[in-house]
Amino acid sequence: MQVTDINWTEAEQDIAQQAFDLAYKRETDALIQQVREGSGQIQRLDDIWQLHDFLSARRHDLDGKYDYRFSMLIFVFANLIKEGWLTPADLTGLSTDKLAKISSLAMM
Amino acid sequence: MQVTDINWTEAEQDIAQQAFDLAYKRETDALIQQVREGSGQIQRLDDIWQLHDFLSARRHDLDGKYDYRFSMLIFVFANLIKEGWLTPADLTGLSTDKLAKISSLAMM
Repeated sequence: MQVTDINWTEAEQDIAQQAFDLAYKRETDALIQQVREGSGQIQRLDDIWQLHDFLSARRHDLDGKYDYRFSMLIFVFANLIKEGWLTPADLTGLSTDKLAKISSLAMM
Repeated sequence: MQVTDINWTEAEQDIAQQAFDLAYKRETDALIQQVREGSGQIQRLDDIWQLHDFLSARRHDLDGKYDYRFSMLIFVFANLIKEGWLTPADLTGLSTDKLAKISSLAMM
């Protein structure tokens, strides 16, 4: 299955950009909420370093995951669906070919 | 002024250990308080990354600062006094020679 050499129409680029931004907002909003709640529970120095380790990992993860290159978007969307930050409905309007590839990769 | 090759009596070692632990507790308690208060103000993703940067810097700073080697203690205590985590009174019982060196370095 060739997924990196795919053309995106202008309409599809708009849909992709919106879905990408939506997933990023959902995931980062959840992170903000999680940190706000978790920080209230901090009692000891170990809790501080656990928070630091957690933020280091999340930052690294987010930096790598949200890769807006057209050659990568099929993988990015598949992963975001797998993780629950997008649903197939958020990608409505993409070609059936792209949607099939994304769904297929999301199940791997 | 030679400060790295200094003998510490057993009584001085006890005083040094207590002062060291006291400063560490004061500073880390202040950090815990600061993070608890600051985290309540988190609204945006940028705030999260600022917190992460802040914790990275504090962790690095604390790791380097609290160096309990007898050859380093004069410098360590001078720095802790300079930063306000210790007062000369916390070191009462050390030799006048050591206290003079610490005071002198703390003013640099």
